[in-house]
Amino acid sequence: MKTSAAPHRPKVPAASAHPVALATQAPPGAAQVLRRCRELTAPALSEAIDTLHPWVAEMARYALGRCEVGGAPADHSQGKGVRQALAVLGAEIVSGPADAGVPGAVAVELVHVFSLLHDDIMDGDALRRGRPAVWKAYGTGPAVLAGDALFALAVETVALTPQAGSAVRQLTRALGDLVRGQADDLLFAERPWTGPGAVSAREYETMAEGKTGALLGCAPALGARLAGAPDRTVAALDRAGRHLGVAFQIADDALGIWGDPSVTGKPVHSDLRQGKKTLPVLAALGAPGQAELAELLAEPHALDDEGVRRAAALVERAGGRAVAVREARRQLAAADTLLAGLPLAPGPAADLGTLLAALADRTI
Amino acid sequence: MKTSAAPHRPKVPAASAHPVALATQAPPGAAQVLRRCRELTAPALSEAIDTLHPWVAEMARYALGRCEVGGAPADHSQGKGVRQALAVLGAEIVSGPADAGVPGAVAVELVHVFSLLHDDIMDGDALRRGRPAVWKAYGTGPAVLAGDALFALAVETVALTPQAGSAVRQLTRALGDLVRGQADDLLFAERPWTGPGAVSAREYETMAEGKTGALLGCAPALGARLAGAPDRTVAALDRAGRHLGVAFQIADDALGIWGDPSVTGKPVHSDLRQGKKTLPVLAALGAPGQAELAELLAEPHALDDEGVRRAAALVERAGGRAVAVREARRQLAAADTLLAGLPLAPGPAADLGTLLAALADRTI
Repeated sequence: MKTSAAPHRPKVPAASAHPVALATQAPPGAAQVLRRCRELTAPALSEAIDTLHPWVAEMARYALGRCEVGGAPADHSQGKGVRQALAVLGAEIVSGPADAGVPGAVAVELVHVFSLLHDDIMDGDALRRGRPAVWKAYGTGPAVLAGDALFALAVETVALTPQAGSAVRQLTRALGDLVRGQADDLLFAERPWTGPGAVSAREYETMAEGKTGALLGCAPALGARLAGAPDRTVAALDRAGRHLGVAFQIADDALGIWGDPSVTGKPVHSDLRQGKKTLPVLAALGAPGQAELAELLAEPHALDDEGVRRAAALVERAGGRAVAVREARRQLAAADTLLAGLPLAPGPAADLGTLLAALADRTI
Repeated sequence: MKTSAAPHRPKVPAASAHPVALATQAPPGAAQVLRRCRELTAPALSEAIDTLHPWVAEMARYALGRCEVGGAPADHSQGKGVRQALAVLGAEIVSGPADAGVPGAVAVELVHVFSLLHDDIMDGDALRRGRPAVWKAYGTGPAVLAGDALFALAVETVALTPQAGSAVRQLTRALGDLVRGQADDLLFAERPWTGPGAVSAREYETMAEGKTGALLGCAPALGARLAGAPDRTVAALDRAGRHLGVAFQIADDALGIWGDPSVTGKPVHSDLRQGKKTLPVLAALGAPGQAELAELLAEPHALDDEGVRRAAALVERAGGRAVAVREARRQLAAADTLLAGLPLAPGPAADLGTLLAALADRTI
């Protein structure tokens, strides 16, 4: 579904004033794009969730910030809805109607919530956006079940579209990679920080591409596919989203070390406390003369407040934060290059550019 | 894909010598049918599992009894493979080649293993076929992840067939019902045995149809669909399998109360000990004058050995076992009637009849 218009290149600003800007809100333009896509997706998302077992539907609504435990309506912050927006924009930039992307938007949002539910169990994270995680609020078993239900619902949503076959394959490829990334992430915890068997930056990026990139790639690709785009365009959007995802994951890692708990909803330095293998730390350990950092990280017990502060300072001093910022920018530039090679509908491409710029601002 | 042969009705024997016969092995004929279908499915199943992350693949092989923790090859009993056989036979009875049903057989087997992995977490069952459940052997988080991976792989397997759209919808409908049944089963645990809010026999059957019947219905329906059968035949096979599933679940309930631990791989009277709402007990409580049983079950703490023995005897004396046997037979007869209305290829229909007869022998 190529347009006759000249290829339009979404503009991503080259650099932000603050590395890891921690913007709590996207700038107005992007906020409007996100809101428009959320509003387009919301009725179909609600309708899908309404088909679930009532108890499971309540857990889904709780996870989306729309109710409290017990079902009383609520309106908690529920994330920006980046994935659903990318799916809607994926349909629009290939000159399809936004509606065509909506089942894709619903599906990626459901998969996103499913993966948060199950990841919080795997990672033992008791808090999600400042509220008890579903497994803490409802129990581990029910949270496993709710995740399964959302997973099945996501697949069903896509299977009901006219492009069922290819669209479901697009989704399951992402799901497979997502699981692979999560498996690597879990296994990284068992591996040493240094020496033989240490996690390499390359392994880290493969993990991040699966864990975070697969779904961010699937979102615009699925939207475009549902709007009838050719395979080449779909594949390029998938790859672009994957690069964005790696940048996202790196930004998340930086937030996990230097982020403000009031923004992240997690304890300060939480990733360092848990000994998570993140790019800033892996990069810092790659710099010469990091014996003190290596020793600190090798401590068999969890680091205390003083320990994590010290580790964060050492990672920053060794250039771990700078490497992470550079790599996140490189990934965003790669996404940008891929998009520049596609013939995109100018209006929606501008919206996508606005959104990516805001994400870049948050990201680098 | 109708055959010109006269409708062939698989024969299910009217009654077994022993109610809840606990046959450890199907009779030779059925064993041969099962083996043939397992052998047809095995290469594709192995190939599918080989595509998983190596760690996740190990957990899948462990769950299938094919390896120990760590990956050393093993050959533990891994169930009869009823679901995969039903998928293969589903293709054959509509005069399709057995091969056509194989992706369906792989998918239902993967979904079956996925549901066992997650159900064992939800139900807190530490043993599965006499070995530590995956969550006990590998940890809860990894078991959640392995289940997710098998789920995604099942959908992908079906999405790669020529009938992707309708076949995936067949599978996701079953998955949705399976989750709904499991949700009801979990919620039954919170509800009283008697009085307002007590679980009715009807609610029990709806739960059992979802939890056990959905996949047993999906198996032959998916096989037939992949072989190009018309919707009417596919729907009838789905319904027949669901009846078989309810009968299966009732038999499982009886095994959970009166089964031999060396056969079930679970502690004696385990369901009574856990206070599970099963048909024999619900039926017994429906009989007049069951104050002693009701009182015993209402005990706030878990029953001791003497308590469960007493409860099992009271359930039997009140006719709970007899009602369960009768209901299982009624469900099998309903499956039989549905099959009798279909034009089935005689040879494969005879195989299906042999298999159902053996299952009935185990079942009633």
